[in-house]
Amino acid sequence: MGEFGLIARLAEAFAKGGQPSGLVIGIGDDAAAWRASGVQLVTTDTLIEGTHFRLPHVPWRDLGWNALAVNVSDIAAMGGIPEQALLTLALPAQTEVADVDELLAGMLEAGKEYATAIVGGDIVGCDTTMVTVTLIGQALVDDRGEPLLMTRSGAHAGDAIAVTGCLGDSAGGLRILLGESAGSAEAADCLKRAHLHHRPPLAAGQMAVRDGVRAAIDVSDGLLQDLGHVCQASGLGAIVHAQRIPISPALRQAFPQDALALACGGGEDYQLLLAAPPGVIERVQGKADVPIAVIGEMVADRQRRVRLLDEDGRELAPPRAGWDHLRGAAWRR
Amino acid sequence: MGEFGLIARLAEAFAKGGQPSGLVIGIGDDAAAWRASGVQLVTTDTLIEGTHFRLPHVPWRDLGWNALAVNVSDIAAMGGIPEQALLTLALPAQTEVADVDELLAGMLEAGKEYATAIVGGDIVGCDTTMVTVTLIGQALVDDRGEPLLMTRSGAHAGDAIAVTGCLGDSAGGLRILLGESAGSAEAADCLKRAHLHHRPPLAAGQMAVRDGVRAAIDVSDGLLQDLGHVCQASGLGAIVHAQRIPISPALRQAFPQDALALACGGGEDYQLLLAAPPGVIERVQGKADVPIAVIGEMVADRQRRVRLLDEDGRELAPPRAGWDHLRGAAWRR
Repeated sequence: MGEFGLIARLAEAFAKGGQPSGLVIGIGDDAAAWRASGVQLVTTDTLIEGTHFRLPHVPWRDLGWNALAVNVSDIAAMGGIPEQALLTLALPAQTEVADVDELLAGMLEAGKEYATAIVGGDIVGCDTTMVTVTLIGQALVDDRGEPLLMTRSGAHAGDAIAVTGCLGDSAGGLRILLGESAGSAEAADCLKRAHLHHRPPLAAGQMAVRDGVRAAIDVSDGLLQDLGHVCQASGLGAIVHAQRIPISPALRQAFPQDALALACGGGEDYQLLLAAPPGVIERVQGKADVPIAVIGEMVADRQRRVRLLDEDGRELAPPRAGWDHLRGAAWRR
Repeated sequence: MGEFGLIARLAEAFAKGGQPSGLVIGIGDDAAAWRASGVQLVTTDTLIEGTHFRLPHVPWRDLGWNALAVNVSDIAAMGGIPEQALLTLALPAQTEVADVDELLAGMLEAGKEYATAIVGGDIVGCDTTMVTVTLIGQALVDDRGEPLLMTRSGAHAGDAIAVTGCLGDSAGGLRILLGESAGSAEAADCLKRAHLHHRPPLAAGQMAVRDGVRAAIDVSDGLLQDLGHVCQASGLGAIVHAQRIPISPALRQAFPQDALALACGGGEDYQLLLAAPPGVIERVQGKADVPIAVIGEMVADRQRRVRLLDEDGRELAPPRAGWDHLRGAAWRR
């Protein structure tokens, strides 16, 4: 099956996913077209074999889900609504059509979950399997039609720092997939699921921006590194209290020694980090459909440091660095 | 230099390219944001080493230019205005920073030429060099604010088929880059330039849609193959008169035997094919800043065939098939 056969297959599969109301032209022309107003958002993220996943450790269906989910995570971090996605697939010549079908099915499931239509893309032959998704969405607006956005630069000194969900589970799941043994089978399953099937808290991001949160980032490279981006962009420092970082019972059971390190720098959590006045965070905590934990505060600091403190207020060395895909990430370590 | 160093370098380079007026958030956050209204367009195209280019035959600066230009071509085929681009770079670890700078410079030149800002992207490590651009734009509108669009499905029986510029030059240039000898040095330079530095006729596409053309495609896979897509989408056949296909003196001189074959199926022309009533095409011909040649007509044909006729009206076998990237394209043939 060549390029055009695969494109026809994609078009057929994605048409089943339904067409959003504003869509004017979907897959199959030189460009897709849709009616838009307000502030549009766009992000793109690539998953590449060897860096972000290794077949056959990652089922194709999960790969398709995650390729969309990691982009939804970026839109969630802006407080936005995802709408249209484009898929670029780089596939080796020997790729099985059944595997591509699984990938499409996984992406369609994620599209259904996050109300996103796949409206176009590209297919190329390549020795390395690579899945690039570009996701377009729109910002929520206030009563006067002005866009509501969370940015990396929107934090202020005195803001509480909060994170959704638990951190480190995905990195723990990766270890188990790579062959490390972990506590119980239940814990192992829970951690593997966190790695293979990211669930970015989209509704919580929208709730946060509506309730007045103006600074956020998605935790994809590791808590301390991503918080560092907020510090850089906002011109502030941050203090994180190690004992407040939300760590799941499964991670503590599976990796009691490394749980904190994985939560601080494991990466691929796809949770949200929010920074806002404590009262604003409390309001969001009271409504959100996911747990939100306050872990620290933004502080004035010309050096824009992220400092991790223990229970007695003593500074801890960062348990582990985040990852940097060009230097060699988890699968290549 | 790792991922974050390169992202900073990109952000710096692209900031020099200027920011469009409606941009709310550019490179450096989880998503880019801009104010939009009317009908938005999006397309994505990937250039991959081994299929679309081979280093060092293609200078990095030209690679950067072409990566944006091939996407501009898709927006031109809709009659639209390109606005924002995202760049995803897959680079081997040993890539020289100076080469990346050249690529960015070439992309910035194309961005300047086509009034497009680069607002975000992603960088991944990969054994194969790959450049993916996603280009967002908007449709022109009529007096009542309704979008004006050209599509593959907009052709009618009796429409004239026209193409911009000359066809086959890019494929001829590829042959020369691969080592074939050609007529004069001037002809060779002209053909190589056509391959290395695509110049999609953006203004002509906008003029065409304003003047009433409603069917178009960009000629990227080869004239007969791309015209076949219009036939499939419009439910019609097409007749092409071989002697009317615009072929440059340079191509005729360099490859006298193969000029027609290269013009019919060489690919990577990035010219526009238009289908509209003859009077509409004449109007566009009179105004456009590029030559536009009428080469045939759309006809009723349930089999949706593209038929190539010689001067005496006899059907010719297609001189050569277009290319299909997964089956192995020019560089791999």
